[in-house]
Amino acid sequence: MERFGEREAIALLDRVLGAERGSGAEVGIGDDAAVIRAPAGRRLVWTVDVQVEHVHFERRWLSLEDVGWRSFQAAVSDLAAMGARPLAALSSLVLPPGFARTELARLARGQAAAARCAACPIVGGNLSRGSELGITTSVLGLAKRPLLRSGARAGEEIWLVGAIGLARAGLLLLERKLRARSPAERACLAAWRRPEALLSRGDGLVRRASSAVDVSDGLAQDVRHLARASGVKLVLEERLVRRALPAELEAVSARLGEDPLALALEGGEDYALLATGPKRLRPRWARKIGRVERGRGVSLERADGRRLVVRGGFDHLARTATTSSQRTAS
Amino acid sequence: MERFGEREAIALLDRVLGAERGSGAEVGIGDDAAVIRAPAGRRLVWTVDVQVEHVHFERRWLSLEDVGWRSFQAAVSDLAAMGARPLAALSSLVLPPGFARTELARLARGQAAAARCAACPIVGGNLSRGSELGITTSVLGLAKRPLLRSGARAGEEIWLVGAIGLARAGLLLLERKLRARSPAERACLAAWRRPEALLSRGDGLVRRASSAVDVSDGLAQDVRHLARASGVKLVLEERLVRRALPAELEAVSARLGEDPLALALEGGEDYALLATGPKRLRPRWARKIGRVERGRGVSLERADGRRLVVRGGFDHLARTATTSSQRTAS
Repeated sequence: MERFGEREAIALLDRVLGAERGSGAEVGIGDDAAVIRAPAGRRLVWTVDVQVEHVHFERRWLSLEDVGWRSFQAAVSDLAAMGARPLAALSSLVLPPGFARTELARLARGQAAAARCAACPIVGGNLSRGSELGITTSVLGLAKRPLLRSGARAGEEIWLVGAIGLARAGLLLLERKLRARSPAERACLAAWRRPEALLSRGDGLVRRASSAVDVSDGLAQDVRHLARASGVKLVLEERLVRRALPAELEAVSARLGEDPLALALEGGEDYALLATGPKRLRPRWARKIGRVERGRGVSLERADGRRLVVRGGFDHLARTATTSSQRTAS
Repeated sequence: MERFGEREAIALLDRVLGAERGSGAEVGIGDDAAVIRAPAGRRLVWTVDVQVEHVHFERRWLSLEDVGWRSFQAAVSDLAAMGARPLAALSSLVLPPGFARTELARLARGQAAAARCAACPIVGGNLSRGSELGITTSVLGLAKRPLLRSGARAGEEIWLVGAIGLARAGLLLLERKLRARSPAERACLAAWRRPEALLSRGDGLVRRASSAVDVSDGLAQDVRHLARASGVKLVLEERLVRRALPAELEAVSARLGEDPLALALEGGEDYALLATGPKRLRPRWARKIGRVERGRGVSLERADGRRLVVRGGFDHLARTATTSSQRTAS
């Protein structure tokens, strides 16, 4: 296994990640800290996300480029949910014993590609050893009026932006060692391996939505986050949720023996956006999937009017997920 | 072992860390991202640092309060080196299996105490499982004119601010299972367990120093960082370095069988500051330990005028350190 030192690793990262710098940072990789000039009159919106091997991913399911890409998109998705524009990112890597120089280059290339896609340069970071691969991405963005989780009001609609369930289906295919045979199944694998944060959609929700969150822990869980933060009851309408599901999900869920609705409720890593807002302000690219009522908690309203209490989703600290099947996810 | 879920953990962190909020953050723990209002006309100075169990520390050497404290101080020390004032921090925790609620509370109390000490509120973060305890701290600060590593000029002096070598001696006492018997030995343990970033000293170096770095990887290593970034030769004068060593180091190094100078050259985790600047601007609390010359690299000038090339210090990716003895350090 190829050995390399810290100085060599920093030079490599500077080369691979540095191509996307220039705009934001006055001082980038190599000093004690990055220096950034921020425009006046904006709020700073700041988040951090970590992807740990064996917890959030297995390397046999992903290339290292994929690992780099999705760890970056997962972090920047929080900015999409706040309606913020990315400014810059820091990448803190924990590298396991024997991690080779070529592996670091592949990981960094995935990060750099995602950074380019999000127009969010990686301006610095940190390197450490550790027993398992870990990628911590901190992202700083700007917003005039950040979209919070706490603004939902009774009488509004619940909106879904983007696809849900595909990444969950892709993960199940990988976990069950099922080879993708159809375009729909390949789409599910791609959704899990190469998610894309909906930054321009998040920006488009500003001045329209009253609250927003990104769907990272599963629709069921994230809708509860909105309800709790806003102090309202959120009612998901089964008919509307099913209608909002991507076409590919039906066929793949049949092979998996899963209800597409369950995949959607449990699936988070597509990084769709969930928002609330008044009907008249709903963008054409947002789908209504329910409504906001007075009260607390989250219900799923069946076609016959019966209501089920919604539970499930991913608990980052639970050994096994609270959903019906075990999962390894963010 | 006590079990707890993510929601409970976030509530605990909000309680323990939340006491120090208020100033910087408009939105703190609990939303997708933190929201901060930053004053105009300042540069953002932004850094990240990670402390990983078995790499940077062993829990038998430290209380969890200590782990929280020193991980925070290590991160904020980068701002001290840039002459920046801390604005806010994010804490991303990886918790190993069986990590109890009470343990999380102790870790967070250490972080909160350090955040209070640095006047730098922790406004958000992230939680994940993992095989070993990891604390990643990202800190955002403000500076009008950040101090870089790259400004040293031939003809200037090299300045040391703060104590060096004590933390290294403390770590060796722990590694060799030597019980602290004297006030000096207890001071060394305290220096390793409870370092304090020199924020006001860093601020005081602005408009005086031409370059600065914090001593985190060992004086020998960090002085090379300055020399390389500035494109100059740095000459450490042995007589001046020895004179600048803390009084406690002499007695403890005798028991350890180490040269106090070696402890200072290899010792980083005191988080002292190293700077360069013209003689007339040297603050009274900074000690001259050498001079800047034209050329490249770092030399140690003995009392008899002979010069040794300085090597050593800590490589974050090396399995064994490049210094004479093996170490576990940042």
